[in-house]
Amino acid sequence: MERQEALDIVKKQLNQKRYDHTIRVTDTAIALAKQYQENEKSVEMAAIFHDYAKYRDKEEMQRVIVESDLPKDLLDYHAELWHGPVGALLVQREVGITNEAILSAIHWHTTGKVHMSKIEKIVFLADYIEPGRSFPGIEEVREQAWINLDYACFMALQNTIAYLVSKQQLVYPDTVHAYNYFNKQLEELSE
Amino acid sequence: MERQEALDIVKKQLNQKRYDHTIRVTDTAIALAKQYQENEKSVEMAAIFHDYAKYRDKEEMQRVIVESDLPKDLLDYHAELWHGPVGALLVQREVGITNEAILSAIHWHTTGKVHMSKIEKIVFLADYIEPGRSFPGIEEVREQAWINLDYACFMALQNTIAYLVSKQQLVYPDTVHAYNYFNKQLEELSE
Repeated sequence: MERQEALDIVKKQLNQKRYDHTIRVTDTAIALAKQYQENEKSVEMAAIFHDYAKYRDKEEMQRVIVESDLPKDLLDYHAELWHGPVGALLVQREVGITNEAILSAIHWHTTGKVHMSKIEKIVFLADYIEPGRSFPGIEEVREQAWINLDYACFMALQNTIAYLVSKQQLVYPDTVHAYNYFNKQLEELSE
Repeated sequence: MERQEALDIVKKQLNQKRYDHTIRVTDTAIALAKQYQENEKSVEMAAIFHDYAKYRDKEEMQRVIVESDLPKDLLDYHAELWHGPVGALLVQREVGITNEAILSAIHWHTTGKVHMSKIEKIVFLADYIEPGRSFPGIEEVREQAWINLDYACFMALQNTIAYLVSKQQLVYPDTVHAYNYFNKQLEELSE
């Protein structure tokens, strides 16, 4: 699928603000793909479609989770976490994308997980650091993103958990598993 | 078992500093037991023995974890987390305590877990707020401990996760599960 065709499809699913965000995530993700020698076309598609389900009704997303193989524990957590897993599924069903690497990057772009692939890391990180984002600690992650992909993901997860806990919000277990995973990876490398 | 007999047993396992800490945890735990109508004798025993395995060799604790039914994932985390689960097991084997409520409070006193019993909460919290402890945010937890046991446990878990993440240390999943558990409990109560 060509970039423009993909953008036309996703534009219908989003408002202008979220579409602009999607463009910035895509550009950032492609730059990261170049930096870390990942397939640019796959990264581009995953980035374009990462927020495909962002504005689906909560009830529709709930139904998709219940009726599919998606982990049911998602329903115990904030609905903000649903659009990744549900998006991966709907992109497959409605757009016909079947590339597992792309679908998985869409699935995990909000929570992270253990054993992330390079494309998963790139989309997760691009979503976090795209130029429109602004929150405490982001400059350090932006800088690190071009130096060490794993360490940048670790910092993003660290910031996310610290933020959620400071706001007394639930923390999805996979986010902590991802944080611990990168922590151990980086420790092993530095030994 | 009488208090003095229990103290004599545990004193042999600890240095003076840790023994003094144990006395303070025990006194705090008994006060919390009075406040929240828990069995004072069980709370006293759990508190006296909570650090029983604190100074066992790392190798011995590792062996106990490997050879017992204890969760093996403990070995992937900081050895500081081992003395609770290993302690519960050794207190049963070596001291002959068989009361499940007491053993479970010893087991979970460092990490916390979902569905904590009242005695588990009391020992966990007493260990956190005993008068010898001093770290940021503790005064708020101390105050809350006499008002709302669940909210005080939640705050302690919140502080613990925030601290670990700020120090780039691993976070044991049960600690996050406990944090999420209390978060949901308190949310349901406030609805």
